[in-house]
Order: sequence, then C-alpha cells, then structure tokens
Amino acid sequence: MSDLDAVLAHIDSDLDMSLDRLFRLLRIPSISTDPAFAADVARAAECVAEDVRSIGFEAAVHKTPGHPVVVGHQRGGKRPHVMFYGHYDVQPVDPLELWEHSPFEPRLVEVSPGRKVIRARGACDDKGQMMTFIEACRAWKAVTGSLPVDVSLLLEGEEETGSESLPGVIEANKAALSADVALICDTGQWDRDTPAVAVSLRGMFHEEIVVTTADRDLHSGQFGGGALNAIRVLAKAVAALHAEDGSIAIPGFYDDVKELPDELRQEWLALGMSPETLLAPIGLSEPAGERGRSLIEQVSSRPTCDVNGIFGGYQGAGLKTVIPNRAHAKVSFRLVANQSPERIQTLYRAFIRAQMPRDAKVEFINMKATTPAWVDWKGRHVALARQALTEEWGRPALRMGIGGSIPIVADIKDRLGLEPILVGFALKDDRVHAPNEKYDLSSFHKGTRSWARILGALASE
Amino acid sequence: MSDLDAVLAHIDSDLDMSLDRLFRLLRIPSISTDPAFAADVARAAECVAEDVRSIGFEAAVHKTPGHPVVVGHQRGGKRPHVMFYGHYDVQPVDPLELWEHSPFEPRLVEVSPGRKVIRARGACDDKGQMMTFIEACRAWKAVTGSLPVDVSLLLEGEEETGSESLPGVIEANKAALSADVALICDTGQWDRDTPAVAVSLRGMFHEEIVVTTADRDLHSGQFGGGALNAIRVLAKAVAALHAEDGSIAIPGFYDDVKELPDELRQEWLALGMSPETLLAPIGLSEPAGERGRSLIEQVSSRPTCDVNGIFGGYQGAGLKTVIPNRAHAKVSFRLVANQSPERIQTLYRAFIRAQMPRDAKVEFINMKATTPAWVDWKGRHVALARQALTEEWGRPALRMGIGGSIPIVADIKDRLGLEPILVGFALKDDRVHAPNEKYDLSSFHKGTRSWARILGALASE
Repeated sequence: MSDLDAVLAHIDSDLDMSLDRLFRLLRIPSISTDPAFAADVARAAECVAEDVRSIGFEAAVHKTPGHPVVVGHQRGGKRPHVMFYGHYDVQPVDPLELWEHSPFEPRLVEVSPGRKVIRARGACDDKGQMMTFIEACRAWKAVTGSLPVDVSLLLEGEEETGSESLPGVIEANKAALSADVALICDTGQWDRDTPAVAVSLRGMFHEEIVVTTADRDLHSGQFGGGALNAIRVLAKAVAALHAEDGSIAIPGFYDDVKELPDELRQEWLALGMSPETLLAPIGLSEPAGERGRSLIEQVSSRPTCDVNGIFGGYQGAGLKTVIPNRAHAKVSFRLVANQSPERIQTLYRAFIRAQMPRDAKVEFINMKATTPAWVDWKGRHVALARQALTEEWGRPALRMGIGGSIPIVADIKDRLGLEPILVGFALKDDRVHAPNEKYDLSSFHKGTRSWARILGALASE
Repeated sequence: MSDLDAVLAHIDSDLDMSLDRLFRLLRIPSISTDPAFAADVARAAECVAEDVRSIGFEAAVHKTPGHPVVVGHQRGGKRPHVMFYGHYDVQPVDPLELWEHSPFEPRLVEVSPGRKVIRARGACDDKGQMMTFIEACRAWKAVTGSLPVDVSLLLEGEEETGSESLPGVIEANKAALSADVALICDTGQWDRDTPAVAVSLRGMFHEEIVVTTADRDLHSGQFGGGALNAIRVLAKAVAALHAEDGSIAIPGFYDDVKELPDELRQEWLALGMSPETLLAPIGLSEPAGERGRSLIEQVSSRPTCDVNGIFGGYQGAGLKTVIPNRAHAKVSFRLVANQSPERIQTLYRAFIRAQMPRDAKVEFINMKATTPAWVDWKGRHVALARQALTEEWGRPALRMGIGGSIPIVADIKDRLGLEPILVGFALKDDRVHAPNEKYDLSSFHKGTRSWARILGALASE
C-alpha cells in the first residue's frame, strides 16, 4: 500500500472523529461582521490554533486591530513549501426564525436516502472547507509521521468583513509565509460530481448610503405633500442604479471591464448553465443581469450591483403615518479583474449625489473593498491540482470563474508573490450566507481526500 | 361675575391640578398600533372613564374586537345636546434614542423664557387635546354644579390604527349618541396666536407592499448578476409612485379630486404660508409636492403619497453580501374629499403589480382606510365656535383645511347625521408622531378656556 493509499484509508476510518473536531468549531458563533460577537471570534481562533498544534504545527494567534489571525508552520526543508489560507469567521444568521435548528448547534442530517449533510452556520463557508485541509494534514501526519511538503497556515477571522487586518499580519510574517505556492479552500465545485479549480474571483465594493431630509421625522397629516420623504429619495436613487436592460447605469462603470478569453468562454458555454439548472432550484426563471450576456457570465465574470439591505421609517407592526427623515441602503458591487474599487467608489458617489434633490443630504458609510483577482489558469500547479482532483472524483476538474470574492487572494499575489491554487468543494445548494447553511458530508469527506492527494501530487513533482 | 367668567377663573386657579390629571394619563403607554401594548391601552380607557365619572358622567368602557371605547353621558334635558369625540391612544415612540427623556414620563419644560411645554408621547395628540374639553366640563361643573348643555362623550383607543371598532360602538349606542352637534378636539391652530376651526380633513389609504423574489436569501458572490433582488424590485416600484413633477403617477389617481372653492383658496393664500414659514423650521427649503400648487394646498387640500417605512435584507452592523428575497414598504396616501379609498386601492394595486418583473410576487398587507371629510364651513355652529375662539384669543378664528385624517369624522356625519365642529390647539412644532412630542402649556390652558367659552356660547344660542 502506497503512503497515499494509507492516508486515504485513514481519512475514511477517522471520519467520525474528523466530524467531532469540525463540530467543536461550528459551535462557536464567530460572526465577524457584528462587534457583539468579537469574543466568540477570538475563541474560534484559539480553538483552531489548539487543533493545529495537536498535529505538530507551531501556531501563534496574532492580535490585530480587528479579529485575530492564526499563523502556523510545520517545516522540515521539504519542497514545495505551501501556504494554506482559510477563514474561521462566519456570516450573521438572521433571519434566525428561518433556521430549522439553532445555527450554532451543528447537526448531521440525512436529507435524502444516503445523502447526509452537516447543517450549521459556517458548515461550508468556511469552517467546513478549511477543516478539509487540516484533516488531510492530520491524516498524512498520522500515517507517515510527517507532512509530505512543508506547510504554513494563514487562518483569519475577518474574511466576511473584508480582511482588513490581514495585510498587516502578512507583512509582519512575510519571510515565513513566502512559500512556493498558495492553497486556498473557499470555493466550490461545478456540481456534486464535478470538481473544479477557480481561475478568477470577483472583487467587491460596498458602501452604505444614508439619506437625510428634514431635521426630524414628520407627521404625514401635517406635512404630507409639502415635506420631502427620505425613503422616496432613497428609493429613486437605488432604482436608478440599474438600467432597463439589467446593466448598471453608473456612467463609466464598465470602462475597465475586459472580455473573457475566448477559450474559457467556449469551455464555460459548453457547461450549459441555464435558468433551469441555476435559477429554477431557487424559485426563479429569468436571469436578472445584463441582457445579451450568458447566465454563466452574469454570475461569474461580469460585474454586478446588489442592494443587500434597506431600512428607514417605521418597521414595526401595523402602520405609522410618519414622513421619515432618514433612510439607509447597503449597496455592494461585485467587480471583475481590472476594475479598481477606488475608481468605482468615485463613480458611485458621484452618481448617487446626482440623484439627490436640494433638500436631501447623502452620506456614505461602512466602506469595504476587495480587489478582484485572476489566476494563471494555464500554470503548472493548477495542472497538478486538477490532476489530483480528477483522480479523486473520477471526472475532469473544470476551470471556473468564481462570482464571489476572497479578499486575500489579491494580497497573496501582490504581497507574497504567490500563485494561488483555489480548490473547494462547496455546492450551489449549500445556502451559504443564508439560513440553513449546509455542507454535504461527501464534500467534507472527499474534500479531505482531495487535499491529501493534492499534497501528495505536489510532493512528488 | 357671570357664570362664564367664574368658570374661566376656576380654570386658571385649577391649572396645576388639571396638569396632574393629564400627566396621570400620559404615563400610560397606550400605543394602539402595536399589539404588545394592548393592556396599556385598556388601562388608559379605565383611567379616562374614572376621570369623567369623577365629574358626574355616567361612563361605560365598551369592549370591542380591538381596543375599548369609553362612552359617557351627562344629560338633564338641556339643549343643544353635544357629543364630544377624542382619543386616548397614541403613536409608537421609535426611534426612542432621539427622545430627550422617556416618552411616558411627562415633564413640564421651559423651552424659552416664559414658554413652558408639556413633553410626552400624546401630550398633544390626543390626550392633551382631549383633556382640554374634559377639564372645561370639570370647571363648569365645579362652578355651577352642572354642565351648560347636555354632553355625551365618545373616547376611543384606535384612532391611530383607523378606528375600526368605533362604528360598531356607534351603532350600538346610536340613540344615546344622536346629539345635535359633534365637537372634536384633534386639530390645530394656524399659529400660536391664531385659533382656527377645521373645514376639511384628508382621508387615508395605507397598504404595505411585500415583494418576494427567490425562495430564499442568496449569496451575492454565488448568484449576483443572475438572481433577482427583492429590494431592487421594491425600490423601482416605490420610485415609480411619484412623477418628476411631484405628482402621483398612478393612472386615474386624481380623477375624483375637486378644486378648492375660490373663497377658501383666496382666504388661504392670504395667510402667506411659504417654504420659509413652514419648511425652514424643519430643515427643508423646497415644497416636495405637486409643482404648480401652492404649499398650503399641497399640505391641506391635495392628495399625497408617502412611504412611511421600508425594510428588507440585512440591517445590522457592518455588511452582509446577501441578495434578499423579500422586502417591505409601508405606503400611505392622504386622500381628499370625493376620493374613495376603495377606488384608490384598486388603482394602487394595479400600478404596483405592473411594476413587477416575472420572477417577483407582490402581496398587499396591513390595509387601513379613512374616508376624507368636508365640514359645512358656512354653518351656524361653526360660526358660534369661531366667535367663542375669537373672544378667547383676541383674533379672528380661521377656517383651515387639515392635512391629517380623523377616521371617525366621516362616520359621525354619515352614521349619526351630526355636523362636526373641529376645534383644536395643536401647533405646527408639536412634533406629533415624532420624538419629543410636546403641547404648549398655553395650548392646554387656553384650550380649556376656549372649550368653556364654546359650551357657554352653544348654551346661550
């Protein structure tokens, strides 16, 4: 039996224990976007650090102005030196009442005959995914006494808020983290049976609009018809963001957007993503993006704009005949390679300001930005990873464009000069960021096996 | 000393005790729109009933499917028989953090040298106003041993939610309430020195829009660009309600609106309401209603549309990159004489439905409607009331159009056949329905004196 075969057998036999370790982490409500959970985020960092120390990593929990970062190393002069990135923070859980059980009491649920899923906030994004790599390391260590390659870990708690503290930690640990290649597990497969590596990631720009009109809330009986309503102003500005054809109406927004390379476009179109396959399962029938673009481009390689939240005036039971003087909209854009968040901010602010009547003031708060990233999709490491995935899953691993953002990827490329390999096992129905988030047990199990193979493949090159 | 002079002197000397009685009522958080406060609304009814019994009324607290109604009588065969209407329920208090002190801990505050105000939720609307009439009755009773006219009381707890239970109580007490004239204290003065009677009241139609798109919240990284966002749909529909010229864009909306009688229009225009006088004090500069209409028409005699509240998606701290599948807007219209809430509902629903793309569903909830009302502004009782007000305030009492709605006025006219006299002492800066609601001490004091004079004037006719 080869080392790899023994490692894979160990992963199979140790699955229950692997799940126990994952569940321990899932029980910690490490919501990074809400300051009320800061202590839980810190607790999750300690939990992760303790876990990786148990398999031989030297691990430190670095304090930052935000949430802590776990940095670990296990080195013995082996090549290549890989740096793995993951995150242990999660999204908020509201609306809580839609969860089938408490989001921080993970359960293994059989959703159809033979198909089990791990259900909890973070089950997939990214605790479950991160643990596939850590469990693969554990198996190599258990079977062979060491890891097949040198490994450094960079595990953060601010991915869901824009990874603001991470660049500082990277700079402070630059020498130790300057590996040969970066491995990242925060992306998905094409479908349940088809593995994939990611070749592009959208960036993000988020900024909340706060519109203020009068200096107080007013009674619509007294002032209705005469006084400007902040919600009316906000709704008009938000409605103006999209043109009738589904494109974003901000002048200059598309100036820096590049067309997809033809080889990839053909590969993607051949996948046959359609409203029936992508939208019907979530209760929709029509692509909502730019008319004339294929659906796979709309969700993968084209920039977008979404209002993630809106609020103003009376939101309680019944009614209140108030003219609200203030209203908020949380607006975010997914950006694509070559678009700069700074330039989008300038265009966006000018556009929103132009929608304001004389008596409305607008402020912009809660800015967050992530630079989009593009992977060398013809590179050598990507090819090795695809080969290992193909062996595990019995199907060729696809090259996918990822609609989401992983803030750190641009930093890994720019600050450490590392080519990232993005491999993940999320499925489209994982309800990431939504109630009842889950991760298929098979994603967790075969994901762990996949990383074991990738580590083996990199070691043997 | 005439009876009236003695009554007025008694009101002056009893002012501190009058305030104590008002404060007792203000301390009860009788918020009718929020079911959580139902017990408090019931407590306020008992408090009012006990108070009017103490001055000789036979008073009953009538249970209804909603909040209770207090009906009281004090009759001795005198003419005319007047029926007084007021309400003891109040609006919600949010945003609570903007109050200078707890809204249900009333305080007497000196806001400028010599000017004191009563500050609390309901200080003006309508507990303070209602109590001016009750205190006037108390003074007549104390000085002369009886009231100068027969009086019935109809005091409800659902005015802020549309007075849905009141018609039933009126029907059940029709004979006893069939007076000669109705007196209502829920309106305002032209300014601090100028009294007024109301000659028109706007009606209201409220219905909340609930837009649903996908069958769950989605991750904008995964679906952004492809999946329809409920807030985007809602914002577009809300923005479409108003045309560029400030008019309401719903086809047919203005069909039943009548022009103001020329005599009243001239009287109103002579009052010189301007952006400087009405809007500058609340931090605005431009009328927001129909272009080409005077400001006084915009806020008094023209129909309007306001979004009273909007919410959807993530509203917590920071950001969440979610595509919300549901969003709400609480929309209300102020209607004017001759517009029917039923017809407006039909037009409104059709208009909003027409804004929906194929993948969006819309529901309409929380419907409330109030029929607009028009008073016989040349009538005899109105003339007597104006004369009494003119004597108290030393200035001619104006005939005003009221921008607000008092649900019961149309019922009083239609079900009881009574001509209403609408007299009130609210000021434009009373912050009705908003944080830090107040009622000038002089409004309360001279308001009580005004009702004492009106009762005397009606008795002597």
